[in-house]
Amino acid sequence: MDQLNVDVAIIGAGTAGMRAYREVSQVTDNVLLIESGPYGTTCARVGCMPSKLLIAAAEAAHQGARSAEFGVAYAPPEIDGRAVMKRVREERDRFAGFVVDAVEAWPEHHRIKAKARFRSDHELELDDGRVVSANTIVIATGSRTNVSPMFKGFGDRQIVNDDVFNWEDLPHSVVVFGAGVIGLELGQALHRLGVRVTIFGRDNLVGPLTDPVVVNRASEIFVAEMDFHPHGEVTRHARSDSGGVEIDYEVDGTSRTERFDYALIATGRRPNVDDIGLENTSLERDDRGVPVYDVFNSRCGDSHIFIAGDANNRFPLLHEAADEGFAAGYNAARYPSVRRFAKSSPISVIFTDPQIMMVGMSFRELTGQGVEFRIGEVDWSDQGRSRVMLVNQGVLRVYGERNTGRFLGAEMVGPRAENVAHLLAWACQSNLTVNEMLERPFYHPVIEEGVRTALRNLNLALEMGSETPPRCLDCGAGS
Amino acid sequence: MDQLNVDVAIIGAGTAGMRAYREVSQVTDNVLLIESGPYGTTCARVGCMPSKLLIAAAEAAHQGARSAEFGVAYAPPEIDGRAVMKRVREERDRFAGFVVDAVEAWPEHHRIKAKARFRSDHELELDDGRVVSANTIVIATGSRTNVSPMFKGFGDRQIVNDDVFNWEDLPHSVVVFGAGVIGLELGQALHRLGVRVTIFGRDNLVGPLTDPVVVNRASEIFVAEMDFHPHGEVTRHARSDSGGVEIDYEVDGTSRTERFDYALIATGRRPNVDDIGLENTSLERDDRGVPVYDVFNSRCGDSHIFIAGDANNRFPLLHEAADEGFAAGYNAARYPSVRRFAKSSPISVIFTDPQIMMVGMSFRELTGQGVEFRIGEVDWSDQGRSRVMLVNQGVLRVYGERNTGRFLGAEMVGPRAENVAHLLAWACQSNLTVNEMLERPFYHPVIEEGVRTALRNLNLALEMGSETPPRCLDCGAGS
Repeated sequence: MDQLNVDVAIIGAGTAGMRAYREVSQVTDNVLLIESGPYGTTCARVGCMPSKLLIAAAEAAHQGARSAEFGVAYAPPEIDGRAVMKRVREERDRFAGFVVDAVEAWPEHHRIKAKARFRSDHELELDDGRVVSANTIVIATGSRTNVSPMFKGFGDRQIVNDDVFNWEDLPHSVVVFGAGVIGLELGQALHRLGVRVTIFGRDNLVGPLTDPVVVNRASEIFVAEMDFHPHGEVTRHARSDSGGVEIDYEVDGTSRTERFDYALIATGRRPNVDDIGLENTSLERDDRGVPVYDVFNSRCGDSHIFIAGDANNRFPLLHEAADEGFAAGYNAARYPSVRRFAKSSPISVIFTDPQIMMVGMSFRELTGQGVEFRIGEVDWSDQGRSRVMLVNQGVLRVYGERNTGRFLGAEMVGPRAENVAHLLAWACQSNLTVNEMLERPFYHPVIEEGVRTALRNLNLALEMGSETPPRCLDCGAGS
Repeated sequence: MDQLNVDVAIIGAGTAGMRAYREVSQVTDNVLLIESGPYGTTCARVGCMPSKLLIAAAEAAHQGARSAEFGVAYAPPEIDGRAVMKRVREERDRFAGFVVDAVEAWPEHHRIKAKARFRSDHELELDDGRVVSANTIVIATGSRTNVSPMFKGFGDRQIVNDDVFNWEDLPHSVVVFGAGVIGLELGQALHRLGVRVTIFGRDNLVGPLTDPVVVNRASEIFVAEMDFHPHGEVTRHARSDSGGVEIDYEVDGTSRTERFDYALIATGRRPNVDDIGLENTSLERDDRGVPVYDVFNSRCGDSHIFIAGDANNRFPLLHEAADEGFAAGYNAARYPSVRRFAKSSPISVIFTDPQIMMVGMSFRELTGQGVEFRIGEVDWSDQGRSRVMLVNQGVLRVYGERNTGRFLGAEMVGPRAENVAHLLAWACQSNLTVNEMLERPFYHPVIEEGVRTALRNLNLALEMGSETPPRCLDCGAGS
């Protein structure tokens, strides 16, 4: 039996694994990166990049109808589904190709194409029969869509996000299960590209939002635009005789039956830790089967094993995966010396239209932890610049700590949320007070002036600021 | 002769004057706000707001052509000039109406409609014959377009920005003199709305940009889109017989004659201080006729007279006018106690497409003051998210102080410059180092990742960071 002895073994060559490799390879040449599938990250292949490509096309398809109010009239566009999907695939392949090129440029003796399973705390069994013995190990196996067995009846018409990006053409109709990030982003994009879409959510949740005011507003906005059921009551799922899928669901007490070409399952993701032999290790695992680990150093318990990225399912976001991969690689290479790394301020963005964002502590975390905080709010519908651009819908809620005035976090649905999120996440990481944020410049007329209004309202709620006159005239008309 | 005795007299009820009034009226009831024209700010009536309304329509007209590459084909839009201008005027009137309502809600004995001129350091002569004697005075008389006499030949076809926003319909053709903020914003917007536009700049300048790399890129982009001559050689200006204007100009040594409906003069603005009797005061004036004043307390010399807003012509920006008005009002009300106020970090944005922005210290200031600094750069053409949205053009240059690593400023032409400007201006005001900025979160895929690339390059140039791998793969494909 072939035995390989290495300093560090990394299971998975996605974002976290690549980042870990980059750290480890600076310290030792005796490192092995083990990948069972094709190279390329979830983000580049089936995640952030292709979804944003589809969304860009969808926004283009949506622009024309919005323009009439400006005095600029477009006839409805011709949406060439094959051309739309061709650009999505080609650009996706280009981005993913960079990743593959990078990995393949790394020394061959650092890489193995195989599926690895733990045989013991220090040993990995490969599916080609070899065994890897490692001083330290990084688990970076990623995640996959969590498909409930209840969808089994859809047969080959049941798809996940990965499948969408391989389409050659747009289908006529899709039913989407799940109103999380993937369900909302893809569902709305397909809807805008002319696909008949119905989205079923659960428990009236909208993406990861937790502030009831923001959840409700987001829900109203998406319900108004498309066939979105925030708490869908689907009573039957089946493969339909005509080749698609068929569902029964209830609306206002009446039952309906509808048929679609595909059922897109977007009911969350699960970490790929169920088939890597963790039962052969001494690691303690939580109820999802994920090893108990420290989020600040990526270390599992007090072991020599580290976990990073979607495999721990904590923040399934690219930038978090990269940070965790860094910590895991840094520590795996230097073990038993283990260092903790401060986390950057939390930030998440959903690329719906309007966009959704959350930064810092969420409303649920603040209330759950009993933090004494106050809330400031702005309604985007009357915000000057948003109104000028006809993107004036949504709400921003900002949270500040009572007595210290420190800015704690925000939740929002509204225009340019991705940009507002960075401004606020950076302010959060800088530990700014609301007053300090208000001392910073706000140009005119910009979306950021809406942030100022929310912060002023927050300052007032904190009893740390004075009332500003209505519409704060000398701050710019309609700011 | 009627004589009014007041604690504080404020000349001009624009942004600066209104802000000053708001401070003064908290301290004394004996205040007088003197305005000779209609109420409403430059910003709301003829500046930021109506220009952004026109630009929003122009972007809508431009979207359709951009969409084909997404697989979404639009026929050219029908641009209804009357409808375009109707929305611009109606929304402008709405915004300006808020301002008028606010001023008119203030006590009547605080307001006078009259033109005021200094008779002495403490006395103002009104054009209705009355005299106002004041302990302290705030000059907030604003600015107007600087029209060179050389344009006289255009007669009634010579227009300024104010006139554009009163149009009932779009004209067929406009020649624009000046490639500053107003010339570029309005010129490009009219061009995109189907008006035949030629823009003549001077000295190859583009807006307020000072970094030669950014100036050149901006120039290339705008020259490629429209008939823009960054250094126009116009040899003759005349009213044409056919009712419009006629100009001769030279391109590559050949002379051309062209006719347009209007000549829009956008060659800068001049402070309204030439007709307010400053010669009757003891104030020292600079070569533009503006009283010498302290930018941190708005005070003219060591006098009891303050100046704020466009009247001092230093930063003709709404938020600066408001800040200066605050300082002027605060100090005029409390004189002889005078306080200095820290300025917020400089920020300016030009709403062309792509947008232009500058924050912190400009390239010219840094080199002029002999600051030892380094430069980081990102070219937007290969930035992932920009490419996804097909807005991938432009360049960002960021400046950092050698040895301290402190972030000093930036200049940019490119996507979402207005949002990037806020992120960077806030970082500047927070005195962050480049390393500290890089510790802050960058989501994926976002425009802000381009900022990160520029900051990483800057850190490398400062010898304070390590080389990142090409395309920084684990930071997100194409980030």
